Amino acid sequence: LSTSTGGRGVRVGLVGVGNNASALVQGVFHYRTAAGAAAVASGRHGLRFPVLCGYAVGEVEFSCAFDVDERKIDLDLGEAIFSEPNRYPVVTGPMETGVVVSRAPVLDGVPAFLDDLVLVAAGHRGRDRNGDDFDRCIEVVASTETEVLVNFLPSGSNDATDFFARVAAAAGAAYVNCTPTPAVHSDPVADLFLDAGVPLLGDDLESHFGSSLVHRTLLEALEQRGLEITHSYQVNLGGNTDFKNLFHRPGAKRASKRSALSTVSSADAVEVIPSAGYLSGLGDNKVGYISVEGVGWLGMPVSIDVKLKVQDSSNAAGVVIDLVRLAGAARERGLAGCVPLSYYFKNPAGEKLSTADALAQIERFDRGDES
Amino acid sequence: LSTSTGGRGVRVGLVGVGNNASALVQGVFHYRTAAGAAAVASGRHGLRFPVLCGYAVGEVEFSCAFDVDERKIDLDLGEAIFSEPNRYPVVTGPMETGVVVSRAPVLDGVPAFLDDLVLVAAGHRGRDRNGDDFDRCIEVVASTETEVLVNFLPSGSNDATDFFARVAAAAGAAYVNCTPTPAVHSDPVADLFLDAGVPLLGDDLESHFGSSLVHRTLLEALEQRGLEITHSYQVNLGGNTDFKNLFHRPGAKRASKRSALSTVSSADAVEVIPSAGYLSGLGDNKVGYISVEGVGWLGMPVSIDVKLKVQDSSNAAGVVIDLVRLAGAARERGLAGCVPLSYYFKNPAGEKLSTADALAQIERFDRGDES
Amino acid sequence: LSTSTGGRGVRVGLVGVGNNASALVQGVFHYRTAAGAAAVASGRHGLRFPVLCGYAVGEVEFSCAFDVDERKIDLDLGEAIFSEPNRYPVVTGPMETGVVVSRAPVLDGVPAFLDDLVLVAAGHRGRDRNGDDFDRCIEVVASTETEVLVNFLPSGSNDATDFFARVAAAAGAAYVNCTPTPAVHSDPVADLFLDAGVPLLGDDLESHFGSSLVHRTLLEALEQRGLEITHSYQVNLGGNTDFKNLFHRPGAKRASKRSALSTVSSADAVEVIPSAGYLSGLGDNKVGYISVEGVGWLGMPVSIDVKLKVQDSSNAAGVVIDLVRLAGAARERGLAGCVPLSYYFKNPAGEKLSTADALAQIERFDRGDES
Amino acid sequence: LSTSTGGRGVRVGLVGVGNNASALVQGVFHYRTAAGAAAVASGRHGLRFPVLCGYAVGEVEFSCAFDVDERKIDLDLGEAIFSEPNRYPVVTGPMETGVVVSRAPVLDGVPAFLDDLVLVAAGHRGRDRNGDDFDRCIEVVASTETEVLVNFLPSGSNDATDFFARVAAAAGAAYVNCTPTPAVHSDPVADLFLDAGVPLLGDDLESHFGSSLVHRTLLEALEQRGLEITHSYQVNLGGNTDFKNLFHRPGAKRASKRSALSTVSSADAVEVIPSAGYLSGLGDNKVGYISVEGVGWLGMPVSIDVKLKVQDSSNAAGVVIDLVRLAGAARERGLAGCVPLSYYFKNPAGEKLSTADALAQIERFDRGDES
Repeated sequence: LSTSTGGRGVRVGLVGVGNNASALVQGVFHYRTAAGAAAVASGRHGLRFPVLCGYAVGEVEFSCAFDVDERKIDLDLGEAIFSEPNRYPVVTGPMETGVVVSRAPVLDGVPAFLDDLVLVAAGHRGRDRNGDDFDRCIEVVASTETEVLVNFLPSGSNDATDFFARVAAAAGAAYVNCTPTPAVHSDPVADLFLDAGVPLLGDDLESHFGSSLVHRTLLEALEQRGLEITHSYQVNLGGNTDFKNLFHRPGAKRASKRSALSTVSSADAVEVIPSAGYLSGLGDNKVGYISVEGVGWLGMPVSIDVKLKVQDSSNAAGVVIDLVRLAGAARERGLAGCVPLSYYFKNPAGEKLSTADALAQIERFDRGDES
Repeated sequence: LSTSTGGRGVRVGLVGVGNNASALVQGVFHYRTAAGAAAVASGRHGLRFPVLCGYAVGEVEFSCAFDVDERKIDLDLGEAIFSEPNRYPVVTGPMETGVVVSRAPVLDGVPAFLDDLVLVAAGHRGRDRNGDDFDRCIEVVASTETEVLVNFLPSGSNDATDFFARVAAAAGAAYVNCTPTPAVHSDPVADLFLDAGVPLLGDDLESHFGSSLVHRTLLEALEQRGLEITHSYQVNLGGNTDFKNLFHRPGAKRASKRSALSTVSSADAVEVIPSAGYLSGLGDNKVGYISVEGVGWLGMPVSIDVKLKVQDSSNAAGVVIDLVRLAGAARERGLAGCVPLSYYFKNPAGEKLSTADALAQIERFDRGDES
Repeated sequence: LSTSTGGRGVRVGLVGVGNNASALVQGVFHYRTAAGAAAVASGRHGLRFPVLCGYAVGEVEFSCAFDVDERKIDLDLGEAIFSEPNRYPVVTGPMETGVVVSRAPVLDGVPAFLDDLVLVAAGHRGRDRNGDDFDRCIEVVASTETEVLVNFLPSGSNDATDFFARVAAAAGAAYVNCTPTPAVHSDPVADLFLDAGVPLLGDDLESHFGSSLVHRTLLEALEQRGLEITHSYQVNLGGNTDFKNLFHRPGAKRASKRSALSTVSSADAVEVIPSAGYLSGLGDNKVGYISVEGVGWLGMPVSIDVKLKVQDSSNAAGVVIDLVRLAGAARERGLAGCVPLSYYFKNPAGEKLSTADALAQIERFDRGDES
Repeated sequence: LSTSTGGRGVRVGLVGVGNNASALVQGVFHYRTAAGAAAVASGRHGLRFPVLCGYAVGEVEFSCAFDVDERKIDLDLGEAIFSEPNRYPVVTGPMETGVVVSRAPVLDGVPAFLDDLVLVAAGHRGRDRNGDDFDRCIEVVASTETEVLVNFLPSGSNDATDFFARVAAAAGAAYVNCTPTPAVHSDPVADLFLDAGVPLLGDDLESHFGSSLVHRTLLEALEQRGLEITHSYQVNLGGNTDFKNLFHRPGAKRASKRSALSTVSSADAVEVIPSAGYLSGLGDNKVGYISVEGVGWLGMPVSIDVKLKVQDSSNAAGVVIDLVRLAGAARERGLAGCVPLSYYFKNPAGEKLSTADALAQIERFDRGDES
């Protein structure tokens, strides 16, 4: 297997070499194998679009990567994704990608509750936006001909999200903001990409298949039938670093989660706990408990109890694989500034569309019609 | 409270005075009270359409009723609905409706497993289609000016379903077939209504909110995201007479249940048990267990476990309240023969439409456009 | 109904007039009614011991009560239990008990997160142990001939737990400490009761029927069969004041919860979240999700998923009804200092006994043999 | 790995080479490996007794085997266990055991619902107890020096259960009856073993860890606390041959299942469906849904919902591994006729003891004290 696709692929840089990166990198390599190609051909295995904007799943190349953790810096990306504290399963085994992980500056600090999970060398714990770091990072992105830079940082990394947006714009790369920190919703950031003539996508990835989707789907089904929702809740548990982080920095996430249920009219009766607890034994899995209580004809009760279990990082990779192809195509087509892609984000640029309209938007974009 | 709506309402006859009849009759009376009207005004409480074809929920009058059970025959309908072996909760208490339950002939026999539940006098256990019965029943329907006759018989009552279809056609009443026995799908029956110039609706009620709906909704959500469904099952348990009957006569129901999931492409991986067991302690409640296992990005597992609990008969009444109003309007408009209303039936006349298209069909009909 | 039992009953004072008090007071009055007596006679309805140490359930009288909330102070106890923010269901309706709720000093402050739930007058928010308060409280307990003072304060009320221990000892009343704050495990407090010649019971009530019990029961069942527990967790959710308090002050509770599972040998694989989130819509109900994963013969997997739903305060009252009778008897028998009653406490005086041994201890005490 | 334990082991013959045989044979071989021995040493992995009556788990040898299926007859046992329609997972891979599967006579017929699962040659479908078969089978058991013959036949195989009992007695082997067909509870069969001077164990294996155990454990926990059980049910689903068989021949099993809950006093409120449905996709897994509803203090509700998933055949093997060692020791000690071992059977010889007493009985037997 080669890390190159012979020049046809989208060149992707990764900010944050955690579980999401592991899922994405292993997946792309897997889907290039014969077994993976067969899965792709079957139209399943978590792929919405086997081919999107002319790119097959395997036609994604990794060009650069950044992290703050000493155990990942200077390793090959194909090795770094298996370093501590990553917990995504080892599917393909270590690979040589030719991409060496670069040091990222620690801009938001490392909170105490992550101290046992993240290893940062003493000299690099400061929070200042070092001018040398900025130029160095631009140089890495530009020299590797990176076309799309993906922000995989943990929730709450506000300064770093902004820093790498400026790096991308300066280096002429598209930027995909997977975090809840505002980027398409920050005017200065959006203007930066407009001026640089490259596309900006965000904010906050909607999971490929997660508890927000299942919860909203069930609530909508009740409402469509005229049933009253008397009480409903959604409680999420996980065991990876991101989850521990979320538990301590729930702010932006709680808002995003609620906005993901905003299409439901009885939102008042609905309570959501994005991160109810860190359960180390769950590893990279996420468990969601959903309860819905309602009344129907003649006030008779209806109750639904759900347990949902998913692999957290596969849920991100299954969405990002589409986004890097869309962003690559957008850049190629010369689109500048925010690109409205409602389907993949909890808080998208432009209007939040209904599921059907959002999907139609993607299909139009796929055909080359970005109106 | 009056049983009459002052002449504006649809006059409805009921074949089978079981739990479904109890839910329907109590509900109509409840929604005529101040508390009920307030619930209707709120747009919830299990009502899809507070007003449909110009009829409010309370604008439904009961005109006649038939049953085989000695404990119901000759009682007022408002009392008979609380007789043994009915198990629907008592919400409104006994009422005087002015409708006396007529004796229905026992056409399909009473199976041994229902012997302890149904009380039929010795002289009436025969299966022959007595000519006297036929004329007598027509006379009841006609003389009460019944506009819509609703078939609430248990699954597998093939002869009786046919018998009352012929009664309705002869008496000039529309017929709503809630059972899986073919009526709109039986050419002779359909022709009868075409010739009589009255409408026929069927076959097999789709529950207002039940396990088929929840199961299909979840499977579709996975498929829309490109996840593979590796195994899924749905198992239903209940405690009313209908459920005991189903357990012993699963044939037509199993086929209907599967057709209700027919829009899902991976139907091969899906197993459905419509009636896994009769649990007396559940009463008129129904419990459905649904399990969905799939794989997403990079073959990572997704699992969903659901427990759904609903009041079985409210689930029927919430649908029939719409059907009697649609059938009343269809008859008034002079429609003859099968009326295609995909939304409310598992096995409708005409094509089985997608949920969105089926809903649009109802809304067109509501506006008076039955194209 | 009379609030008095004619002098035969145990005279009980309550510190904290919240949901637990509501459950206890309503329950005692209910079990004195004919319907309640019938339930008692059936040996069920949550009563371990219809008669204990010679006292029937109804032979408990309320003599005094203390709270910090303006909406309860100076009300009759039978009215105060229905004041905001209490959420326990109204079963018996308001009663006249003759007991007026006295003001308790605010010793531990009112944390910000409870500000919208607890109403304390401006002049009473200080934290000092006012000498006048102390004398006044002793006077209330002594003058009402209170025999047993029950500490129903929220977790983390360390100063108040200590304050009322000293009040009880000074007034010659037994003290039942339902909170995790050390009392029997505090030498100064224990000595106080030894010197005063009255009994002290604690610490931290074990719920009558809760997730700790169910979880421990399942884990023990696996271990008894030689199965390996690979991962297990327990997550609790609730909607009352105590739960909100717990979420913010989890410290002592988390330790207690773990100690309640201490009899299980594979405790390393077990994770417990005592308060995963405050879900207002649950009211006084508590929901526990328990997951157990293990391996059996030839490494084959076993999995158990549990959802448990209970009324939180009934769970306390069902235990306290026994404790006040035991404490009353202990005082009557002249026992001084810590009384070891392992069965009812998470962290009891003396050794934590196995369930069987702990039960035997109670039965011996009931017979008058407190060895 | 050797199939022999150098003469120290118990020599075991198997009647029925289905999933249970596969679990037992693979398990014994696995626990002889280094990895298996380590698991044994850990005291876990589904082993109640690493050593019992002086025999380690690996000190069990297979000496003979019988089946009716053409696809298994004449194969080595280590290969036959992987033949269709067996569905137990392949853990150790095919082995050479030196034991060739002998043809068993078809005595109870092959019911229509198993026709697609069991392959019997046309000439062998008769039901007569052929004299030649009898002598041939005795010869197989005797010549292989089989010490213990285990009856793994499906529920309802009444004639075959009796046939192999007579074979065992005639050949001087102990007999372990895992089925609900009466053997220790049949006087003629019991007398046979008394006369032959060899031990007889049965009837009907209690699963190592299954829904009966979990259900009884939860019900007992409620009752011990004085809670009233208002309604409870247990529903079981599976996907192997035995389960399909059970669904059609529920008789004896339903009785056994109920007797397994007989220690619970509120058995009236409890409903059990041993085989609610055959779900092919579950394979050799079994799913049990348990619901418990009760009321506690002041009539407040308690509800417990459980989903239990286990490997069906491992559940049998984990018990049989103890029984063959006990039976081997009993034979060695010269015990004749029924041996009362309440712990392992739903319907044991002698009295059904409480769990604690039953366990004590095994421990006494282990020490050589079979009083």
